[in-house]
Amino acid sequence: MRVLGVDPGLTRCGVGVVEGVPGRPLTMLGVGVVRTPVDAELGRRLVAIEQGIEAWLDEHRPEFVAVERVFSQHNVRTVMGTAQASAVAMLCAARRGIPVALHTPSEVKAAVTGSGRADKAQVGAMVTRLLRLSAPPRPADAADALALAICHIWRAPAQNRLQQAVALHTSKGRTG
Amino acid sequence: MRVLGVDPGLTRCGVGVVEGVPGRPLTMLGVGVVRTPVDAELGRRLVAIEQGIEAWLDEHRPEFVAVERVFSQHNVRTVMGTAQASAVAMLCAARRGIPVALHTPSEVKAAVTGSGRADKAQVGAMVTRLLRLSAPPRPADAADALALAICHIWRAPAQNRLQQAVALHTSKGRTG
Repeated sequence: MRVLGVDPGLTRCGVGVVEGVPGRPLTMLGVGVVRTPVDAELGRRLVAIEQGIEAWLDEHRPEFVAVERVFSQHNVRTVMGTAQASAVAMLCAARRGIPVALHTPSEVKAAVTGSGRADKAQVGAMVTRLLRLSAPPRPADAADALALAICHIWRAPAQNRLQQAVALHTSKGRTG
Repeated sequence: MRVLGVDPGLTRCGVGVVEGVPGRPLTMLGVGVVRTPVDAELGRRLVAIEQGIEAWLDEHRPEFVAVERVFSQHNVRTVMGTAQASAVAMLCAARRGIPVALHTPSEVKAAVTGSGRADKAQVGAMVTRLLRLSAPPRPADAADALALAICHIWRAPAQNRLQQAVALHTSKGRTG
C-alpha cells in the first residue's frame, strides 16, 4: 500500500510518501515540503500548492492520500489557510479517483507513538525509527506528513480496501 | 466590467454574473447555485464544485472573480466547509489568471444597502432593484453572489485596474 501523507498549510505543506503493510517494515519513498510565498495573492498560492501536489502524485502514484483533519480551535487566520490548502490537496486526489482519508492530529500521534498527546519531537523520533532514517525529517511539517501516511497504513486496512473499491467503481462510472 | 460573484459553500455555492461600471445601470448575465450532495465524500464534493465553477467561467468569461471572505467566528463545521469551497473557487480563477477579490459580508451589505448590518431580505430586495429583476433571486446564496459582484464593481475601480494589470503581467510571465 502506497500512501501520500499531506500536512496542509499555505506557507509550508508537508508531503511524504510511505509504502508498506501493517506488521511489516515500512519504506519511505519521498519526503518534502511544498512552499508558497507569504506575500503572494491567495489565489496564486493555492495554484502553487495544486502544482506541487500534482507533481508528487505524478511521481509517486499513491493508492491513498491521507490529509490531516483541520480543526478551528486554534489561531483563526492559520486555520483558514490550513483548510484552504487541505481543500486543494483533497481536490487533486479526488480528481484522480484516489481515495482521501482524513486523520486527526491525535489519531496520528497515537498511531506512531502510542500517545495522542505526544509532542513534535516524539513524533519525529518515531517516524525516524519506523522508517529507518538516519535523522528526523526537517521541517516538522515533512515529518508530520510521513506520520500521517504511516497512520493511514496502520489504521483499518479493511476500511481502506472498501474505500478503494468504492473510489475505483465511482471513477469507472464517471469515465464510462 | 464583468464580475463573477461566488458565495462559497459546500452544499450550496451561490454564483452570479453582473456586468457594469460604477454610476451606470447594472446587468445580470446569470445567477445560480452549484450544489453538492451532503452525503458525498469531501474530496468528491470539492471536485463537483470545481466542475461547477469551471462551467460558469467557461460560459461567462468574467474579468474578475469576487469571493466572500470567510471568517471563523461562527459555526466551526460550516466555516471549514466554506473555507474549502472558497479555496476551490479562488483556485479556478487564479489558474486562468483572473484576479480574485475577497469582500467581507459587511462590505457587501454596506455596498448594496448602505448598511453593513442589513439582513438577508434587505440585501435581496436591493439586488432585485439594482439589477431590475422581477423577483429576488432564490436561494439567498444566489442573491448574495450577485451582491458580491455588485460590491466588486462599485468598490475601488482604480484598484481593480491595478490588480488586473498585475494578473495579466504575471500570467504572461508564466506562459512566456
